[in-house]
Amino acid sequence: MGQFSEYKGVSTLLELAKKPIDLTKEGAISEKRICQLTAKCDSLRLIYATERVNEKVMQALEDLAHQADVFSKMRAMQSGETINAIEGHESEDRAVLHTAMRNFFSNEYLSDKAKDAAKLGYAELEKLKAFLDETKKQGFTDLIQIGIGGSDLGPRAIYLALQAFAEKGKRVHFLSNVDPDDAAHIMQGLDLSKTLVLVVSKSGGTLETLTNEALVAKGFLDKGLSIENHFVAITGKGSPMDNPDKYRESFYIWDYVGGRYSVTSMVGCVMLSFALGMDKVLAFLKGAAYMDKIALKENIQENLPLLSALLSIWNRNFLGCTTRAVIPYSQALLRFPAHLQQCDMESNGKRIDKQGKKIDCSTGPVIWGEVGTNGQHSFYQLIHQGTDVIPVEFVGFRESQYNKDLEVEGTTSQEKLLANLFAQSLGLATGKSDANPNKVFPGNRQNRVLLAKRCDPYTLGMLLSYFEHNVAFQGFIWNINSFDQEGVQLGKVLANKIIGLFAKKKAGDLDTKTFPAACAYLKIIDQL
Amino acid sequence: MGQFSEYKGVSTLLELAKKPIDLTKEGAISEKRICQLTAKCDSLRLIYATERVNEKVMQALEDLAHQADVFSKMRAMQSGETINAIEGHESEDRAVLHTAMRNFFSNEYLSDKAKDAAKLGYAELEKLKAFLDETKKQGFTDLIQIGIGGSDLGPRAIYLALQAFAEKGKRVHFLSNVDPDDAAHIMQGLDLSKTLVLVVSKSGGTLETLTNEALVAKGFLDKGLSIENHFVAITGKGSPMDNPDKYRESFYIWDYVGGRYSVTSMVGCVMLSFALGMDKVLAFLKGAAYMDKIALKENIQENLPLLSALLSIWNRNFLGCTTRAVIPYSQALLRFPAHLQQCDMESNGKRIDKQGKKIDCSTGPVIWGEVGTNGQHSFYQLIHQGTDVIPVEFVGFRESQYNKDLEVEGTTSQEKLLANLFAQSLGLATGKSDANPNKVFPGNRQNRVLLAKRCDPYTLGMLLSYFEHNVAFQGFIWNINSFDQEGVQLGKVLANKIIGLFAKKKAGDLDTKTFPAACAYLKIIDQL
Repeated sequence: MGQFSEYKGVSTLLELAKKPIDLTKEGAISEKRICQLTAKCDSLRLIYATERVNEKVMQALEDLAHQADVFSKMRAMQSGETINAIEGHESEDRAVLHTAMRNFFSNEYLSDKAKDAAKLGYAELEKLKAFLDETKKQGFTDLIQIGIGGSDLGPRAIYLALQAFAEKGKRVHFLSNVDPDDAAHIMQGLDLSKTLVLVVSKSGGTLETLTNEALVAKGFLDKGLSIENHFVAITGKGSPMDNPDKYRESFYIWDYVGGRYSVTSMVGCVMLSFALGMDKVLAFLKGAAYMDKIALKENIQENLPLLSALLSIWNRNFLGCTTRAVIPYSQALLRFPAHLQQCDMESNGKRIDKQGKKIDCSTGPVIWGEVGTNGQHSFYQLIHQGTDVIPVEFVGFRESQYNKDLEVEGTTSQEKLLANLFAQSLGLATGKSDANPNKVFPGNRQNRVLLAKRCDPYTLGMLLSYFEHNVAFQGFIWNINSFDQEGVQLGKVLANKIIGLFAKKKAGDLDTKTFPAACAYLKIIDQL
Repeated sequence: MGQFSEYKGVSTLLELAKKPIDLTKEGAISEKRICQLTAKCDSLRLIYATERVNEKVMQALEDLAHQADVFSKMRAMQSGETINAIEGHESEDRAVLHTAMRNFFSNEYLSDKAKDAAKLGYAELEKLKAFLDETKKQGFTDLIQIGIGGSDLGPRAIYLALQAFAEKGKRVHFLSNVDPDDAAHIMQGLDLSKTLVLVVSKSGGTLETLTNEALVAKGFLDKGLSIENHFVAITGKGSPMDNPDKYRESFYIWDYVGGRYSVTSMVGCVMLSFALGMDKVLAFLKGAAYMDKIALKENIQENLPLLSALLSIWNRNFLGCTTRAVIPYSQALLRFPAHLQQCDMESNGKRIDKQGKKIDCSTGPVIWGEVGTNGQHSFYQLIHQGTDVIPVEFVGFRESQYNKDLEVEGTTSQEKLLANLFAQSLGLATGKSDANPNKVFPGNRQNRVLLAKRCDPYTLGMLLSYFEHNVAFQGFIWNINSFDQEGVQLGKVLANKIIGLFAKKKAGDLDTKTFPAACAYLKIIDQL
């Protein structure tokens, strides 16, 4: 496999990028263009008429997808081939099978391996059903999920997104940060006798998670409550946390489910089913499974995650954009950008290719965003009139979740919300001229709009999978390994060293010569 | 005033940027360097030894500050001169006097205008004291703040940061998004008879805020509660909201306090004093006032906001970085990056200078961030091993807020938190070589560390003002107007047009020829 610059499509696209379509021209964004450049899939619509693409660009991007062999790569992933690997170098050497964690709704499997993984996943779901019945009888009202990274961001984002559908009286709390104030704040005012605690760590050895578990356990013990009645482990089989003496139940995850892709495994489902009930969790999984099939389609107009990935590649590698904003016009998706930030940046923030060679193109951009309309009163100034171009992905819904809306002057709030989304999409693209230089909007600020009917469990499952595969497809094109995270190791090693220094200092046994730079930091903090 | 490229310092800095200091060299980050490159101010320390600067760079940056006349500009701002203006063009033509909203702790004023503004601000504070006594007697427990942008992000960030110090039983809720689900979610389970509602809009005409006010008011009326007993206006004197028939009280803000700089005005203080009591609010204001004085110092080693601004200019305009991450290692600062995102990007996302000419350099970067250690399990992969360099600003505290910590294996959680912060700062700068290309960390990824004793009201006041002036100083150097926001106007105009289309469609009176692109979006949403 060659480098990115060696794909034939790349030179074509570089040429086309010298003069991308001018969206600010009168009539450039016509009704016809909007209809033509809208892709459909189930109840989703992806409007990309406001991207800086024309037929030639789309054709070259499609060619690039074929040259990078993304269709085989997606099949290989969903088949359970060992794609989490760097050739010729020590690496994780694993399959990537988060899709198996929701492949429960048909009898079609791409391979025996995928089938086996799905069966294992389903067995946990069956265990979960029994667990729910039991805990329901015991009257638990609250649940604390202790985990960090993928054990926190994805589950938290989805819980907040679906909170509107939670069973009455059920509350979920998340504890991730090793900051002791996080735990103290959450434990305030909780009735621990009615609280379940999920401890989530695949390895069973995550520093933050174990530290927080100890902090929370102390709270239970202080109240005379037993850990083994309240604490549940979600971990790898055989990990140090897989211990029936300590936890009332262990739910399993496997090495082929990466943390940032683990929402649809027990990492997300135990908590979600506690809050929402099993039926809604099944709908959520079904939505994700549906989109997994869509990601296998070879027609880019049907394969929405691939279409979106190609547009992102165009913006990143050819139009030179270094960040990408994701802005859902839905308060429920408050933390969805934070989940995507992890999913995308931890996957594609890589500098070597799958053969271990230094890569010759830009890979993952910075992903960031807040919900609209809030962002309009914040960073939109820069998106409209700053010196850099920031591609935006908008997400919107036709209907609200709670259906408690009010018509003021002929329109509902939900309609006002959508009107704002559409206004921003068009305004960024077309711009506006003015005699006052401060009122000029240069336009040609590309964006796209993903629309759905309502932010319900099934739709959210589709969205989650859409964004997961969008990340994977970009990694396939860049020929990087989107499934490891070696870049987080150095910090861990150094942190452990410095934790050792803190301990030695307390014991009056610090030798400042072993790590002088770190000791200098310690000295500075001491003087405060 | 010339363009950025015409400052003498710029050519020197461009030259120096060709070969910035290599932080990955053995011993480059020595104890001596760390001590030397640490600036002090009260209980704050700014360690910038991990930035890619040496003495020559620092000297050239200091020269640049003088060439851009930033000291006079800061004095002019705090004196109330009309600095929110574009010469020769219609503009807001206002003073910028958010510093007057906390200039209550000395009798020194830079001008009569600043003194008058401070007196007006103090009068509101006196009104607030009386209001608090009254509402305390009436037993209010909850407060909903309705506002968006600066009336939401800053107040929310500070409330969350200081929630640990809130009076028992007091709760604050924020309602910003026009999304009707936001209001529905917040109103669930509130005892409205004990709830105050603050409606915050300087103009008295913000669409989202008025829409949400109507939604919430309906909830009160449905329960037979009177609006005039529960609703409070925070608005400009004489605005449509300044109406004693409708609100039990009006607190005033002025046109010289911009939304994103309004936390220390009544926009933040009414809510904060309800939650924390007046004493803590005064401590918060005092911290901010202290830093305002620091921002006037001409020695860049003492003027922390300016020092930080110069380092950001170095990274942005000379080392070519397009984003800046702000990562507080403190759960309490959960939403502080979102506030900074507005404060910085809305201020400095500009493309014309103060004379109306198109600017010839990059201005405000994308500001983003999440709290640590959480980010370590998310986007740090990209910061360490991605293809772009992301400068990071860490913020850390010696002590926790709740002081409920647990020692595990010789160290507290707070120490583990700090150890992680220090590890990341050093690891990003020094990198690590390895035979396995996937385990190589290129290093030279610049960052700085701001340390304080504890995240208490006074310290947070200092931090808020530090970041506000940091933004202002960068704007002064780029010679842009950091205090207007013309870039948000186009979206508002288009949104109102499209809201009109929604209304007409409902009335069966839509002429698709008036705005065909928007009508195409409406058609797509209809089909869902």
